[in-house]
This record gives sequence, C-alpha cells and structure tokens, in this order.
Amino acid sequence: GLGQLGAAWPGAGGSPGVPQPCQAPQQWEGRQVLYMQSSGRNNRALVSYDALNQRVRVLDERKALIPCKRLFEYILLYKDGVMFQIEQATKQCSKIALTNPWDPLDIPQNSTFEDQYSIGGPQEQIMVQEWSNRKSARAYETWIGIYTAKDCYPVQETFTQNYSVILSTRFFDIQLGIKDPTIFTPPSTCQTAQPERMSEDCSP
Amino acid sequence: GLGQLGAAWPGAGGSPGVPQPCQAPQQWEGRQVLYMQSSGRNNRALVSYDALNQRVRVLDERKALIPCKRLFEYILLYKDGVMFQIEQATKQCSKIALTNPWDPLDIPQNSTFEDQYSIGGPQEQIMVQEWSNRKSARAYETWIGIYTAKDCYPVQETFTQNYSVILSTRFFDIQLGIKDPTIFTPPSTCQTAQPERMSEDCSP
Repeated sequence: GLGQLGAAWPGAGGSPGVPQPCQAPQQWEGRQVLYMQSSGRNNRALVSYDALNQRVRVLDERKALIPCKRLFEYILLYKDGVMFQIEQATKQCSKIALTNPWDPLDIPQNSTFEDQYSIGGPQEQIMVQEWSNRKSARAYETWIGIYTAKDCYPVQETFTQNYSVILSTRFFDIQLGIKDPTIFTPPSTCQTAQPERMSEDCSP
Repeated sequence: GLGQLGAAWPGAGGSPGVPQPCQAPQQWEGRQVLYMQSSGRNNRALVSYDALNQRVRVLDERKALIPCKRLFEYILLYKDGVMFQIEQATKQCSKIALTNPWDPLDIPQNSTFEDQYSIGGPQEQIMVQEWSNRKSARAYETWIGIYTAKDCYPVQETFTQNYSVILSTRFFDIQLGIKDPTIFTPPSTCQTAQPERMSEDCSP
C-alpha cells in the first residue's frame, strides 16, 4: 500500500509521515442518512453491519415528514447472494438476487489520502480523514470515504461520477458489536417470497 | 421559543427536557464543502465568518481534481449590501449588489428540534443536534441545521425543496475568532470593479 500512497502524494513517497488506511470496525450498529442525487431525497435507517459474516441489515426509520412512503427492512446476505426486502407494516417479503460482490465499509489498502480535518470546534471535535480511490492527477475518484482518524469509525461515504455526487451516506450513533444476531434471520413470510422488488412509493 | 418548540414536540410541551437552540459562535474561521444539487459538484473553500459585523469571506480552495475551474475569493459585506468577487489568479474584481438580507449561520430561536446523535463512535465522538424550520406535521422544512450540542459549532446546513436537497454545506477545522480582519478589505483592483459576475468555468 505504501508505494501507491507515495506515488499519489508527491514528494512524500514512502515517508513515515504519510497516513495509512486504518482498519474500520467489523461489526457495528448505528444509523445512516442516505442521499441519492437522482431523487434528491434523504433516507434514514438503522443499520447493522457484520463484515465477518458479510451481511447487512437496514431498517427504514419513520420520518414523519415524507407522506405516503412505505417502510421496509432489508436483509442482505452476501455469502448467500440474496437480499430480502420486507415491508415493515405487512411483513410482505421479496427475495432478490444480489448481483454485486461483498464490498466492505472500509478504506481499501491502496486508497489515496486526500485530507484530514476536525469536525466540531475547540474542545468538542473529532479528527477525521478523507480517502479516495483516485489513482493519479488524471484519473478522478469515484469514491470518497470519511473515517475517524483514531478508531476508524465510518462518518461518510460518497460515490461520484464525472465529479458529480451520485450517492452519499452519513453514519452516526455507532456502537460496536451486534446486539441481537437473529435480526439477520428473515421472517417466516420470506419462505414464500415474491421475486419482484417492492416500490418505495405507496400504491395509488 | 419554548411554546413553539413544545407544539412541535408532541407530549413534551414546555417541559425542561426539551432542548432549546444553542447560540452559535459569532466569529470563526474554518473550511467548508458546498454541495449544489443542480451541478452535483462539491466546492471547497476557506471561510471567515463575522456575524458581529455581518460579513463573510470565502476563499476557493484549490482541489486538483477538477480541471479548468477558475478560483475566486468572495467578500460579502451585508451592512454595505455588496459582494466582491475576485479572481485569485488575476485579481480581476466584480462588485455585485447583495439582494438577500443578512442571515446568520445559527439556529433561530423558533426552530424545531429534530434529532440528536453522535458522529464517530465510542471514545471518539461528538454529540450534535439537528434543528429545522418545520412548523407542524403538515408544513415541511426547507432548512436543516446540524450543530454540536455543547458549544454550538456549525457542522452542516441543508436547504431543501419538496423534500429534495438543493444545497448542503459541511463545515470543519473551525477556530474561534478572526485572525486577520484586513481580509474583509477588497484589493485595490475592486476600485474599478466590473458589475457582472464572473463565470466559474474557464473561458474557451
């Protein structure tokens, strides 16, 4: 990793002052706000993240402000290659194949160090680092990750295309560990799951 | 303020447990990333914020990743109703009338408490509060401000329309006070300033 880092950080090649990616926690629970540029919307959810078993559970949080929005629970099991989408109100369940491979929420070892700064202010701040997948001055990044400098907690992940933000997720209220591993077990309604993804909007 | 807060926070009307808006610092310097939904772009800048004299200075930060972007300095003097736009490279200067009144970076007293959470994780976190200008369950917010819970440092400000994000600004590296007040004095090239705003894109 250090060689690539040095190349992307001119003049500092291989010196001990160049930050190296930290190791993000493997199991945690917290909350997220997901912003999608296509809709302009912010989606809030509870998150349980289990990198050891390559699974994630996302539980939509009710936010009274958006009318007529169905709330779902998502259970993503990457080792099985499936995602369950469960409507919270009815327990109606869809079983959908995962097409992407497992991609952990962390800083890949060959990432480029972009910036370090504090959030908050004097006496009330955390230090965070920005990392990207930029490979040189001419190949622009499509991923930017912001993690705390010491314990490597995720703060924000952003995906871009042509310097435009496509997707951005903020993380907070992070607690280490998984309190109740049974949350990764789909409910019984998923035994007769439909194959189609359910729409997030209400039926007319 | 408490009456309106109570009304927006059902069941807690007027109780001492309802958070009240904190008082954001009046003079500080730091950095910002401004996201605009229209362009999808992130703009980085140094910021000097002086609420006592109703003035702001924004200095575009060079971010090597975006090609062919002109860098500007902006000096906004709300008491005089003018903004100076200065190209960093040439010192070319435009003088433009400010049409909006001064709007401080803080939490108005009649704001609605939305949420409180930690950014970071165990042993490495700050507590922040979300406030909005939502007035009831039926009138949706158009402004959300995130400030640290104790010393009220700005962390993020978001403007929305029909639940869509229009503009979002993250703040960081905040230091209290203004180190050098002369930064609010426009350079001499502004004595013969042009009245048209300069474009941020390069000339062809």
